[in-house]
Amino acid sequence: LAEGQVETVERQVEPLHPADTADLLEALGRDERKLLLRITGEALEAEVLTYLEPELRNAVVADLGPKISAQLLKQLESDDALEFFEDLDEDPRTQILSRVPRTIQRLLTEGMTFPEDSAGRLMQREVVVVPSIWTVGETIDWMRTHKKQIVSDFYDLYVVDPRYKPIGKLPLSRVLRSKRPTKIAELMSEDFYPLKVTLDQEEVAYLFRQYSLLSAPVVDDAGRLVGVITLDDIVHVIDQEAEEDILKLGGVSESDLYSDVLRTTRRRFSWLAVNLMTAITASLVIALFEATIEQVVALAVLMPIVASMGGNAGTQTLTVAVRAIAMKDLAGRGVARFITKELLVGLFNGLLFAVVMGVIAWLWFDQPLLGAVIAIAMVINLVVAGLFGALIPFLLDKLGADPAIGSSVFLTTVTDVVGFFAFLGLAGLVLL
Amino acid sequence: LAEGQVETVERQVEPLHPADTADLLEALGRDERKLLLRITGEALEAEVLTYLEPELRNAVVADLGPKISAQLLKQLESDDALEFFEDLDEDPRTQILSRVPRTIQRLLTEGMTFPEDSAGRLMQREVVVVPSIWTVGETIDWMRTHKKQIVSDFYDLYVVDPRYKPIGKLPLSRVLRSKRPTKIAELMSEDFYPLKVTLDQEEVAYLFRQYSLLSAPVVDDAGRLVGVITLDDIVHVIDQEAEEDILKLGGVSESDLYSDVLRTTRRRFSWLAVNLMTAITASLVIALFEATIEQVVALAVLMPIVASMGGNAGTQTLTVAVRAIAMKDLAGRGVARFITKELLVGLFNGLLFAVVMGVIAWLWFDQPLLGAVIAIAMVINLVVAGLFGALIPFLLDKLGADPAIGSSVFLTTVTDVVGFFAFLGLAGLVLL
Repeated sequence: LAEGQVETVERQVEPLHPADTADLLEALGRDERKLLLRITGEALEAEVLTYLEPELRNAVVADLGPKISAQLLKQLESDDALEFFEDLDEDPRTQILSRVPRTIQRLLTEGMTFPEDSAGRLMQREVVVVPSIWTVGETIDWMRTHKKQIVSDFYDLYVVDPRYKPIGKLPLSRVLRSKRPTKIAELMSEDFYPLKVTLDQEEVAYLFRQYSLLSAPVVDDAGRLVGVITLDDIVHVIDQEAEEDILKLGGVSESDLYSDVLRTTRRRFSWLAVNLMTAITASLVIALFEATIEQVVALAVLMPIVASMGGNAGTQTLTVAVRAIAMKDLAGRGVARFITKELLVGLFNGLLFAVVMGVIAWLWFDQPLLGAVIAIAMVINLVVAGLFGALIPFLLDKLGADPAIGSSVFLTTVTDVVGFFAFLGLAGLVLL
Repeated sequence: LAEGQVETVERQVEPLHPADTADLLEALGRDERKLLLRITGEALEAEVLTYLEPELRNAVVADLGPKISAQLLKQLESDDALEFFEDLDEDPRTQILSRVPRTIQRLLTEGMTFPEDSAGRLMQREVVVVPSIWTVGETIDWMRTHKKQIVSDFYDLYVVDPRYKPIGKLPLSRVLRSKRPTKIAELMSEDFYPLKVTLDQEEVAYLFRQYSLLSAPVVDDAGRLVGVITLDDIVHVIDQEAEEDILKLGGVSESDLYSDVLRTTRRRFSWLAVNLMTAITASLVIALFEATIEQVVALAVLMPIVASMGGNAGTQTLTVAVRAIAMKDLAGRGVARFITKELLVGLFNGLLFAVVMGVIAWLWFDQPLLGAVIAIAMVINLVVAGLFGALIPFLLDKLGADPAIGSSVFLTTVTDVVGFFAFLGLAGLVLL
C-alpha cells in the first residue's frame, strides 16, 4: 500500500473526510503511519487531529514535529484546538504553545485553567452576541459588515445585557422570518440553560439529554457569557460515558484498544488480582466442607452450578441498576420499589430453577435428597443475588464510589460465598 | 403529595419542563399517576408524551383516553408524533388515528410504512427548501411572507433541484451574513450526507458520529428530499445502542426497569436457562474426574479459582472487542493484530498469576506439585481466555449474530471447560 508511490497515496488520501483519514492513521502500523504523515505533511487537514483517538495524539504529533503540529492547531476552532491540546504530553505541549499566535496561546492556556472534563474544556469560545435593544435589521446589517470576525457556521445568537450576562437565545430562523423593524427582545426565547464553566461534562451531557438541547451558553462565576456548547461536542461525551460503563462492568479500566501489550497487561492485572481475592474467598468456604465433599464427591460436581447461577442472575440485576444510576432513572421511592421487585424476580426464577435443577440432580446421581439440597440452595442464592445485585450499586453510589467498577466484585463474592455455603452446608446437614 | 389539593398540584406541575413532568409520571405509582393525569388533563404539555419511557406510553394513553391523547398528539412535531405513535398498541392507535386531522393521519400512516428503526421513522417531515436560482434577498422575503407555514425553529435550509433532489445545504448563518443579491448556489455547501429513508438507525447514528453532523437530509428511493434528521433525534439512538450493549453483556435482553415482576422474571429466565446449560457442561467435565477429586479433595477447593480467573480475563478481552465492533473501531488487519495482542496479554497475565497462585496453593496445602499444576492450568486458561475472548465476538459478528448477546455464554463455556479440564486433568496425571 504505502511503499514508494507517493503520488498515488496523496491522491487517495486527499478526498477523504478528516474522520476517515483519522481512522486510516489508527488502522496503520507505526512505520506506515510515520510514512503516511511524512508524505502528507502540512497538506494534512487540521480536523484529522480532532478525530484521532487520544492514545494516538502524542504519537502523531511526534511524527509531525512541533512546527507542523502548531500550524495545524492554528486552523482549528477553539474547542477542537483545546480538546487536542489537553491530551498532549508536557513536552510537545510547550513546544507547540511557543509556536502559535498570542491570541491562540491565551485561549489555550486559559482553557487549561478550567477543571478537566468541565464545560469550560468543551465550549467553543466564538459566540455571536447581540444586545437586546437592537432590531432584526440592525442585526442583519451588523452581521453583513462583520462577517470576517464571525465563526464559519453557527445556529443561535445570544442576547446579553450590558454586563454580558445572557438574557436570551435567538435561533437564526426567527431572525430570518421577521421584518427588519422587529426588536430582538421580542423575538428571543428565554428558554435556555446557562451552564457554569466548571460544570462536569457528565452533568452537561445529562442536561443536554434531559432537555433535548441543541446548544447551551456557558457562563463564568459572575454569570458572564464566555462560550457556547453545541450538541455535537456532547456526543463524544455520551459515547465516552457509555463506553466507560461498559468497560468498567467488563473489568477494563479504560479503553486499551490502542495500547501496547505490556501496558494492557498491567492495566488488566489489577482487576484480575481483585478477582483472585474473590475466588480465594470462595475457595476458603469450600475448604470448610472438605470432609463433606470427601464423602459425597457429587457435591464437587454440582457446586459450581449454584454459584454460577447466582452470579449470572445477580449480574442481570446489577446491570439494570448500574445503567439506571448512570441515566438517573431511579430516585427516592423508585429505588425501594426496584429492590423489592428484584428480590421477587430472584425468588420466582429461584423457584423455577430449583425445580429444574432439583430434578436433574436427582436423576443424574439417583439421590432425591441431593436434588432437594440443590433446589433449596438455588432458591436461597437467587434471592440473595437479586437483593445484593440491586443493593450494592446504590450503596456504592451513596458512598461516592463508582457503581460500575466495584459492584460486580462485591456481587460475585456474595453469590459465590452464599452459593457454596448454602449448598455444601445443607448437604452436610441433610446427607451425612 | 397528590391527595385532594388539586390546585397545589397544578401549580407545582405547570412550571416544570416537559422532561421533568415525564420523570415525575415515571416515578409515581399507578394510582397516583392516574390521579395526576386526571388533574392536568388537557393542560398537560404535549411534549411530555415524547419524553415518556416507551413502556409507560400505553398506560398514560389509557389514563388520558383517546380524545385527549389525540389532541396532544396534534400539537407535536412530525418526528415526535410518529415516535410516540409507533410505540402504542393496536387499539389506542386506531382510536387516536380516527381523531386527528387528515394531514396528520397521512403523515402517521406513511411514517409507519418505513421499516422500524429506520431513518424514515426518525426524520422530521417539515423541511424548509429553496431553489438554487434564488438570491439571499428572495429567500429572506419568502421566509418573511410564509412564516406561518415554517416550523418553529430550524437551522439549515436545503437547496433542491427541480426534481426535488437535494443539491446543497445552507446554514442560516451564511444567509444572514451575505448581501441580498448573493445567489444561493454560491453560498450553499455541497458537503452534506443524504441518508436513505430505509437506512437503519444504527447506521444513521454511525454517520452522524463519524462525520460530526448536526443534521442530514433524508431522501427516498428516487433521491427526492423527504425529511431531515437532526442530531437531537440521534442522541437517544446513541443512548439506546449503548444501553442495549450494556444490558446484553449483562444478560438482560432489554430494559426492564419499568416492567412488572412477572414479565421481568420471564425475560430473565431464558438467559439463565442458557447459562444453566453452560454450568452443567462444566459439571460434566468435573464429573469425568470424580475419582481424582475423591483422592485429592484439595482439587475441589482450588478448581473454581482457575475457571473464574479464565472467565474474568476473557470477559475483559470480550468487552473491549464487543465495544470495538459496535463503534466500528476495528477492521481488516486490525482484527488480526488485536487477537494476537490479546493472546499475548493472556500469556503475560497467565504467567504472573501462575506464580502468585502456584505459591499460594503450595503453601496452603503444603504440596509443591499441586502448586505446579495450578500454575500450568492458569497459564493455559488465561491464554485460551484471551484467544477466545477476542475471537468469539468477531466470529459471531461475521455470522450475522449480535456479539453482545452470545459472546459471554460461549466464552464462559470455553473457560470453564478448559479451566476444569486442564487443572483436573493435569492433577490426575501428576498427583496420582
